[in-house]
Amino acid sequence: MSKGITSRSEDYSQWYNDLVTKADLAEHSAVRGCMVIKPYGYSIWEKMQAALDKMFKDTGHTNAYFPLFIPKSFFSKEASHVEGFATECAVVTHYRLKNDGNGNIIVDNEAKLEEELIVRPTSETIIWNTYRGWIQSYRDLPILVNQWANVVRWEMRTRLFLRTAEFLWQEGHTAHATSEEAVAEAEKMLEVYADFAENFLAVPVVKGIKTANERFAGAVETYCIEALMQDGKALQAGTSHFLGQNFAKAFDVKFTNKEGKLDHVWATSWGVSTRLMGALIMAHSDDAGLVLPPKLAPIQIVIVPINRGDEELARITEVVDKLISELKAKGIAVKYDDRDTQRPGFKFAEYELKGVPVRVAIGGRDLENGTAEVARRDTREKQSVSREGLADYLEQLLDEIQKNIYQKALNFREENITKVESYEEFKEILDGKGGFVSAHWDGSPETEQKIKEETKATIRCIPLNNPQEDGVCIYSGKPSKQRVLFAKAY
Amino acid sequence: MSKGITSRSEDYSQWYNDLVTKADLAEHSAVRGCMVIKPYGYSIWEKMQAALDKMFKDTGHTNAYFPLFIPKSFFSKEASHVEGFATECAVVTHYRLKNDGNGNIIVDNEAKLEEELIVRPTSETIIWNTYRGWIQSYRDLPILVNQWANVVRWEMRTRLFLRTAEFLWQEGHTAHATSEEAVAEAEKMLEVYADFAENFLAVPVVKGIKTANERFAGAVETYCIEALMQDGKALQAGTSHFLGQNFAKAFDVKFTNKEGKLDHVWATSWGVSTRLMGALIMAHSDDAGLVLPPKLAPIQIVIVPINRGDEELARITEVVDKLISELKAKGIAVKYDDRDTQRPGFKFAEYELKGVPVRVAIGGRDLENGTAEVARRDTREKQSVSREGLADYLEQLLDEIQKNIYQKALNFREENITKVESYEEFKEILDGKGGFVSAHWDGSPETEQKIKEETKATIRCIPLNNPQEDGVCIYSGKPSKQRVLFAKAY
Repeated sequence: MSKGITSRSEDYSQWYNDLVTKADLAEHSAVRGCMVIKPYGYSIWEKMQAALDKMFKDTGHTNAYFPLFIPKSFFSKEASHVEGFATECAVVTHYRLKNDGNGNIIVDNEAKLEEELIVRPTSETIIWNTYRGWIQSYRDLPILVNQWANVVRWEMRTRLFLRTAEFLWQEGHTAHATSEEAVAEAEKMLEVYADFAENFLAVPVVKGIKTANERFAGAVETYCIEALMQDGKALQAGTSHFLGQNFAKAFDVKFTNKEGKLDHVWATSWGVSTRLMGALIMAHSDDAGLVLPPKLAPIQIVIVPINRGDEELARITEVVDKLISELKAKGIAVKYDDRDTQRPGFKFAEYELKGVPVRVAIGGRDLENGTAEVARRDTREKQSVSREGLADYLEQLLDEIQKNIYQKALNFREENITKVESYEEFKEILDGKGGFVSAHWDGSPETEQKIKEETKATIRCIPLNNPQEDGVCIYSGKPSKQRVLFAKAY
Repeated sequence: MSKGITSRSEDYSQWYNDLVTKADLAEHSAVRGCMVIKPYGYSIWEKMQAALDKMFKDTGHTNAYFPLFIPKSFFSKEASHVEGFATECAVVTHYRLKNDGNGNIIVDNEAKLEEELIVRPTSETIIWNTYRGWIQSYRDLPILVNQWANVVRWEMRTRLFLRTAEFLWQEGHTAHATSEEAVAEAEKMLEVYADFAENFLAVPVVKGIKTANERFAGAVETYCIEALMQDGKALQAGTSHFLGQNFAKAFDVKFTNKEGKLDHVWATSWGVSTRLMGALIMAHSDDAGLVLPPKLAPIQIVIVPINRGDEELARITEVVDKLISELKAKGIAVKYDDRDTQRPGFKFAEYELKGVPVRVAIGGRDLENGTAEVARRDTREKQSVSREGLADYLEQLLDEIQKNIYQKALNFREENITKVESYEEFKEILDGKGGFVSAHWDGSPETEQKIKEETKATIRCIPLNNPQEDGVCIYSGKPSKQRVLFAKAY
């Protein structure tokens, strides 16, 4: 099987698909729109989960688990929520199969559910129905719960990690006594996501709020982090919603406040998903394969012997064993690939494809000279390095690579935020380099919708702490108080 | 809300339900048969997951993720498999809801799936369909993959953790070049489960194989670990299956072996689930609440101040802060409960209910005397202990409690394996103390079935390395070569 992948300039979309499948991250399954996350891809997701889970717990959250199924009647209780999700719901209608007598397995029509069950596309409804039993008084608040789960949204056009019918995610669902506290929670979790994106994924993000058109179905305010991919398209990497009292009202969740009065509970929800795998891949990788930030790389350093014969291999292995124990003591994930069934060049290509941040090669001459060849994946630079203090050097190198990958992505992002003053200029940028386009907008959903129809660009967000300045809307010419960020998006 | 729970002697089944709900482990959801796992219950499950996941990785396995849905046609390919699961399948038939024009949300009949999808009750079929693409040669083997997932089996009679329509589990699915290697894998994973049960859950288990009647649908051999609950009923705590070439044949998964010949791949699968929560609860807990083995306790030590006034509280807190940092340095999960809204007695009862292994209380006299009151949950003994070296003492105490809980359960199990020589004696034991009944059986499924119908007892297993001895079947009087273990079971 050839490991060659299409280049980005040739066909960015094909490059992405090649990379995901050939680096063994994921593949399409036999079930329309559902993916198989392969072991290597899943091990990256596990690293993301571990980092996020720690951040959630450090901010006072605990995990719980709610049912996969949502009764249709619950789903319908919050009007804008059901409107947002109704067209992409997998519906369970029966609970038994049977043999039709001719050896065929068919659905047993006698086992029809009285009420259909929806496979959760998100869990606000089932969770708020549960919270009704958990909350009586302000003493029961806040509830700070997160769930790691699979969800299903029946997308018609799917892409591995970016848009799949089933995906894995976490969804936080919190309940609060006051509006202020809920808003503060939604903003805090946005900060957690931004921190994770920048410090683990090494992906710079713009924090902002969504326009009404782009808001989560059922939210009062949707906060988001928006990242920029190498092809100039934006990707929403995480959202945090202030839900007001919408779900508490729909599910009759009231509490007695400190003044002894009954009030509806205030809510937030927030989530990131396996979509982040897509962001990770598209933000950093190159035509040779994945480029993984060291903090999320399942293998951070791979060591390859370049030996002539078994005797030399034994001497190299002796040196390597010592290095490995030093690296492991530092908590570094290291792999020694001494397979004799593959040549070094094959191994080099394989680890480049898989995005291993650092490759160390040791040959006969290195043994003599007390050196090792160190190659970094991000810049693809190779260097002969003394084996004296090599473990320390490599530890620092991993830090440097993490920073460099982020800096490179940040530079790209900064170069690709373009201020425009006219609709002509706006369209020119979108059809050219792409990226974020910072433009005045009159604030109306109608203008937003027309721009979307004409250019496929959406308002990605109104950045937080957005500078206020007088201007005119690029589309309508009406007065505007601020610029917003447009982009074509995944 | 009263936290009182029914006693075991009064109503064992009600005691269990009370415990699960009042100790905040889980509750029934609005969806028939599906549970909500509450934060405290989930934190115990997370500890189980972490321990098991490490054991799987230490034995060379990696995690991956496969689709929630299984096309009906896949499901039907392995005849005994579909027969085993057909009657408990949740079936997805549609992928969209719509508004009927009168404000009602209904299933959109125009969005009917061409082929129905089954919500996975287990994943052999979808996984072996995937493995076909992963395996060409013996070089691609073994595949050692595990999945953490939710599964659905439409049970008619459900009980929290023990039998729910949706549950959480892990399912290992491995592929091998030889029968011997697959059998060795199935046996290895049985050992891993037994190790986990005994050293983490503190539940002694009998390792054995299932009879043909009790075998997993699609397996050639099912290995199991069987535990005994305090009411004398057995609980199957984990299974590991040697699947032979059944799924490889059903899904046409062949490989070229070392001799260059095509052969079908050999398989295993193995799983444990949130059912282990039920085993944990029923094996150790008492009428005051949960008794958790320290290795799985989310809070291992709770410290409660017994103070008169704020000034004394401040002096106690100073002492406690030092103790907490010593305990945390040892990796012990400790909680300081200095809430002034609850009296110490209330707190004591709460932590007993929640099974916290050790409670430390420090009052004014302790401050003077350099002591602390240490209460262990397993024996409910209290003791005044010097604060000199207290952290070391507590660390050892946690070890001792872990061992004691196991020993107690082991003693109980040993006292409740009864050898019987006649069917009369057999029924007498089952109707009396219960437990495992060791009896000769003629080896026929018919006898096994009749005993089951007449007594509700099933053959839990044929123990591994079972002593061979001549005898006569208690039911048929036919010759028998060995005893097997019967019990009524969850």
